[in-house]
Amino acid sequence: MGLGGAGWRSVGSKAHRWGCLRLRGFSSAALPPHMESVGFIGLGNMGSHMARNLINAGYRVSVHDVNENAMKKFSDDGIPTKRSPLEVSESSDVVITMLPSSAHVLDVYSGANGLLGNGGRLGPWLYIDSSTVDPQTSRKISMDISRCRLKEKKGYAEKPMMLDAPVSGGVPAAEAGTLTFMVGGLEEAYVAAKPLLLAMGKKLIYCGGAGNGSAAKICNNMAMAISMLGVSEAFALGQNLGIKASTLTDIFNCSSARCWSSDTYNPVPGVLEGVPSSRNYDGGFTSKLMAKDLDLAMASASGVGYKCPMGSGALNIYQKLCEEGCDAKDFSCAFRHYYTGKDEK
Amino acid sequence: MGLGGAGWRSVGSKAHRWGCLRLRGFSSAALPPHMESVGFIGLGNMGSHMARNLINAGYRVSVHDVNENAMKKFSDDGIPTKRSPLEVSESSDVVITMLPSSAHVLDVYSGANGLLGNGGRLGPWLYIDSSTVDPQTSRKISMDISRCRLKEKKGYAEKPMMLDAPVSGGVPAAEAGTLTFMVGGLEEAYVAAKPLLLAMGKKLIYCGGAGNGSAAKICNNMAMAISMLGVSEAFALGQNLGIKASTLTDIFNCSSARCWSSDTYNPVPGVLEGVPSSRNYDGGFTSKLMAKDLDLAMASASGVGYKCPMGSGALNIYQKLCEEGCDAKDFSCAFRHYYTGKDEK
Repeated sequence: MGLGGAGWRSVGSKAHRWGCLRLRGFSSAALPPHMESVGFIGLGNMGSHMARNLINAGYRVSVHDVNENAMKKFSDDGIPTKRSPLEVSESSDVVITMLPSSAHVLDVYSGANGLLGNGGRLGPWLYIDSSTVDPQTSRKISMDISRCRLKEKKGYAEKPMMLDAPVSGGVPAAEAGTLTFMVGGLEEAYVAAKPLLLAMGKKLIYCGGAGNGSAAKICNNMAMAISMLGVSEAFALGQNLGIKASTLTDIFNCSSARCWSSDTYNPVPGVLEGVPSSRNYDGGFTSKLMAKDLDLAMASASGVGYKCPMGSGALNIYQKLCEEGCDAKDFSCAFRHYYTGKDEK
Repeated sequence: MGLGGAGWRSVGSKAHRWGCLRLRGFSSAALPPHMESVGFIGLGNMGSHMARNLINAGYRVSVHDVNENAMKKFSDDGIPTKRSPLEVSESSDVVITMLPSSAHVLDVYSGANGLLGNGGRLGPWLYIDSSTVDPQTSRKISMDISRCRLKEKKGYAEKPMMLDAPVSGGVPAAEAGTLTFMVGGLEEAYVAAKPLLLAMGKKLIYCGGAGNGSAAKICNNMAMAISMLGVSEAFALGQNLGIKASTLTDIFNCSSARCWSSDTYNPVPGVLEGVPSSRNYDGGFTSKLMAKDLDLAMASASGVGYKCPMGSGALNIYQKLCEEGCDAKDFSCAFRHYYTGKDEK
């Protein structure tokens, strides 16, 4: 999926790709802008793989991270590095951010030397935030961006747009380019961003307006945490009552307790192969990240005056797991550490 | 699947059915006893259908219930009714009980005029309890039965056996004869009981020793309750954050929050057809029964010195639902009544 450096009008395959966009998302007076130059901010475990996949797909990528070592790995390969988000924005058609928390996202967009530091006038026409944050943060940034006006000479879009596009699939999917993106924002921005997102993932789910991608992600992870704890508790209770987890798994998987945590990601060592529980809970999705996502869910709930008693119980358990040294273990470690009292360290 | 009144040796189809049993569960010195005469105790919403299916399958059934009206429906059809469990036991090869609670089960087996009132000497060689009770109760009764000795003249078994065999599938499956049985007890008893159970159900899961059927049932229902509340909470939080339950359902069902409560029994009205949430939470598995099963799970956990924080949270919610008048509504009503605060009465 090479794009080279040429404008979209001159490249056959790309013109073809944009063809449908003209019909669906853009009027002839506002044809889609090019997106060869992509700025990528946040080169952690996830972002570094995502940026590599964009480079491999032919996009002209420049990168930024507060960690100099993370940047050096790119500069060693001849990838341009930038000293600030503002500097990234000045040379990019599109900017993608993949950051650890809402605070980092707010700082990168709206802080000193942030992406919107120049009022967004010289910057990208599209911002995509793939960080997992609360939907309120996504909406605040989307609102800030909607107040920007692009300099007239850029022409193809009057004002920049933003998508919140958190991912699922973890580091393995980031590396393999098979992430799932949950996308919130204007539908025309989503349609335009598809080729870019598909260079990093294989499944895109459009969730509605700004913030809905973030809302989908934290709701999904809250439900996942609760069902993981539910089956873990049931397996541990079953063992205490004399019934093996493998027997209970067979029963759950053909009945009403069936869930992803029982049939795909079973938390009991030895029941399924190739899952974190069968390798001492290493790899996978850490308890620390789950605690973070549950914290986001509870903060979001509180922000809209809503109570989540089961989510709150799950957050307590994951916070305790982290305090007890299981923060770097996969979140399915709750079975062994929290419910059976055995330490898997 | 007619059995008529003839002994098993003389009926072709039955002899064929027993054939495998001789190889699997019984030595030639202890051939399987006949089981034409079946006593059925507990003619409620579930038990009445189960007894009818046994009758339709050709078993010679006699029945008992404390409710005279329930018995009359059978006596009107010429089915023998008995005045006490003891009387049932005296005329039955096998007795099946389907009762509302552990206390009822203990009373029917060990109370005055109970099934074991004569020391079990004249009684059945096999007892099957399909009530949902805690595994400790199942084990106590199994132990009491194992202390019985059959009168020598019955010959084919030295002492009676017991299976705990709770069901899933609810009233519709009881009526259709498509229940799932989770069976605990001696494997030879399970093998012998298969034809009888298959007259009332279509799926049998052997769970191990005495009490394991009951343990499986309450663990399954605890995990089911927790995941139902987890998705309900996530759908309601999502709505509060501006994302539709139908969109979230699509996301959950192709990702890590997927569960029976999202893809088969969705609690949000209008997302799936033919489920209780789409008919004002009528029919299905009531909140009252779910509260009962969670209470059993918590009592069982407490009995083995184990804590279930998520199960305990779920019990609180279902108790509250019952107090607020939703006891007869399907347990998925938690979405509407508990999480969105709308009353579905």
